[in-house]
Amino acid sequence: MEQLTELGMRARRAAFSLNSLTTEEKNRALMASADALEAHAQEIIRANRTDIENGRAKNMSEGLLDRLLLNEERIHGMAEAVRGVASLPDPVGDVLEEWTRPNGLRLRKVRVPIGVVGIIYEARPNVTSDAFSIAFKSGNAVILKGGSDAIYSNGAVADVIRGALSENGFPEDALLLIRSTDHETTTRFMQMNGYVDVLIPRGSARLIQAVVRNSTVPVIETGAGNCHIYLDEGCDAEMAKAIIFNAKTQRIGVCNAAESLVVHRSVLDTVLPAAVKKLQEKNVIVYADEEAYGALTKAAAADPALKLSLIERAAEEDFGTEYLDYKMSVKTVGSVEEAIGHINRYSTKHSETILTPDEAHARLFQNAVDSACVYWNASTRFTDGGEFGFGAEIGISTAKLHARGPMGLRELTTTKYQIDGTGQVR
Amino acid sequence: MEQLTELGMRARRAAFSLNSLTTEEKNRALMASADALEAHAQEIIRANRTDIENGRAKNMSEGLLDRLLLNEERIHGMAEAVRGVASLPDPVGDVLEEWTRPNGLRLRKVRVPIGVVGIIYEARPNVTSDAFSIAFKSGNAVILKGGSDAIYSNGAVADVIRGALSENGFPEDALLLIRSTDHETTTRFMQMNGYVDVLIPRGSARLIQAVVRNSTVPVIETGAGNCHIYLDEGCDAEMAKAIIFNAKTQRIGVCNAAESLVVHRSVLDTVLPAAVKKLQEKNVIVYADEEAYGALTKAAAADPALKLSLIERAAEEDFGTEYLDYKMSVKTVGSVEEAIGHINRYSTKHSETILTPDEAHARLFQNAVDSACVYWNASTRFTDGGEFGFGAEIGISTAKLHARGPMGLRELTTTKYQIDGTGQVR
Repeated sequence: MEQLTELGMRARRAAFSLNSLTTEEKNRALMASADALEAHAQEIIRANRTDIENGRAKNMSEGLLDRLLLNEERIHGMAEAVRGVASLPDPVGDVLEEWTRPNGLRLRKVRVPIGVVGIIYEARPNVTSDAFSIAFKSGNAVILKGGSDAIYSNGAVADVIRGALSENGFPEDALLLIRSTDHETTTRFMQMNGYVDVLIPRGSARLIQAVVRNSTVPVIETGAGNCHIYLDEGCDAEMAKAIIFNAKTQRIGVCNAAESLVVHRSVLDTVLPAAVKKLQEKNVIVYADEEAYGALTKAAAADPALKLSLIERAAEEDFGTEYLDYKMSVKTVGSVEEAIGHINRYSTKHSETILTPDEAHARLFQNAVDSACVYWNASTRFTDGGEFGFGAEIGISTAKLHARGPMGLRELTTTKYQIDGTGQVR
Repeated sequence: MEQLTELGMRARRAAFSLNSLTTEEKNRALMASADALEAHAQEIIRANRTDIENGRAKNMSEGLLDRLLLNEERIHGMAEAVRGVASLPDPVGDVLEEWTRPNGLRLRKVRVPIGVVGIIYEARPNVTSDAFSIAFKSGNAVILKGGSDAIYSNGAVADVIRGALSENGFPEDALLLIRSTDHETTTRFMQMNGYVDVLIPRGSARLIQAVVRNSTVPVIETGAGNCHIYLDEGCDAEMAKAIIFNAKTQRIGVCNAAESLVVHRSVLDTVLPAAVKKLQEKNVIVYADEEAYGALTKAAAADPALKLSLIERAAEEDFGTEYLDYKMSVKTVGSVEEAIGHINRYSTKHSETILTPDEAHARLFQNAVDSACVYWNASTRFTDGGEFGFGAEIGISTAKLHARGPMGLRELTTTKYQIDGTGQVR
């Protein structure tokens, strides 16, 4: 605990220094960090090898081992990402509003760094450099707590960046890594009020819920995505097929992948079977409610290419499940209002889309669905800092306070009021 | 617990309806609520009498009894405040940004209600109607938990407003009051994730810290104000006297009152004694560090009107104390940088001011002091929604996330992205 307090004080001091760096200085530090990552690639790869060996010894799955693996190409990618952040506009110092009161007081609302950002993540070592660069560019110090499976890789990446900062005259404590992995340290990290201004958990729904439950520091929830596609009356079958296929199968393990189809009764016999047949190209299993199951059975009788073996009956819990797999639930509704009710009940408030030719339905859906990103005739997969044009992303907020949806540099800032007077009193 | 879940569901349903009300409808509901408060003034006064009697039986102080008391005039004031909120611009629906991506996706960032706002407060029954009106105008349902000392008054005010809503065809559950006052209910209220989107505690530092520690729902901290005035080298003695006197004594019990003077060594023998003498008109006791104590003793020897009986030596804890009383600490520093360091260490990040003729010092101070509102040559007492021109205020955030400084209607909103496509996939 003493150690964490010490880390917290170092982070606060670093944050105080970062607050007064110019954009040019911050960019110089980021470019130096990127260069150092490439120059020290072999050290990082050596450290990563230990994590990989430990992972194999623990029978980690090939998928997880692949996410953990660093090689020269991937380290180059990490360095390029840091350079990309250097090239983005600096949000700090932007004057958002400015006005004068009748008593002559002049008020400015100015964008400033948050201060110290805590990030808790799992076994992807590239998050170490990504999170650092986004936090640094927006003027914040970071305290990182990565998963134990990547502890050597994260340590090596952090050491290289800290070395580059210090060699170039910047505070190395702008990046602090918590190296103990015990449970107590993690819990204490979530309660560093006064030292950590915000905690952002990145990873599984379980990790995120643990942080929400145990943290006394403000948390921005990210990532959980039980995303819906609603097929409205009259929706275009070709568009529906393409969007459903893309949103479900282009990348199954991501939070903006679609997990549930909500289908207007009028397109149960037409668009739904066509879409399911397309999904079956990737062996997607659909979990259909009674009515949709009936419609699909009927369609399969007429079209033997539609495989009944990939169609199952939905249980209630399917509608609340983020599969992150080649699986999708199907719910039948009788109106856009009913679709909205179903989605607001089961969604994780991440991303939902309506496919419809009817603009009034689209606007109703976009206004009434209580999610961060609500689409009309587009794939949910676009909920992403890069796709939105933010250049970089620290995560996707499913929270409603402070930041909602993809979080870029601006979402790691806060504001302050600066008020100029000439002796005013009340 | 079951009861709270039931309240939560009712609040969520009400919030869903409020989301689609027009500005005109919301204003009509607010005007009807204001009229009802006046029409039912006698009922409210009767209920208030019970609270007052109970307060007297418990030997509540006259000051607290006065804050608790409702009479026709005060109820008229509450109604007028609700009408004032009706007259403010509606922030919901504002399009904050709008852009088109190279793939043709059109993105809009739109201001929307947060949903369900929870407010925990102490014994001021006017908060019941104030909080309701600000939340309602910004499209939110509120769940209120007032202090047990005002339970009958709050219940009467809530009943009158709920009746007015329902009679006029609006969801009465836009205002829900938790009527149990036991500790367990309060704790459960802080953990209604999924039902309550944000909790705003209003009251003593102790109440606020209890909410921060126990809540799993996002919290916006408000109110604690250990506010500083820094007297820089060369500051104008007359301005300093007026601002210090105003910030310390105009109203001692409020969060934006000044609690601490930080004094540049060069004005210890000039501005400080003059300011302290002015404070002594209200019998303010100053707790001075060694150097300032010496300077004041010397000044008192030359000027018998400066009363040494009101000057004491500061202990370390004085610098961290929000007195809310006719008391003020004094710290001596050698530079603006040292002043900034002292303030960032001891402040509650609320409001601080620098008195200086030097613009470079003022800008450095405004940038480096980590507080919500940083003034140059003005009283800290201006940190207030009304003084900022927001028209109404739900509290003053000392948090860094979501809202910082005075919170008006906009601070009770969040944003969502609405994205229009023409079939785009990734």
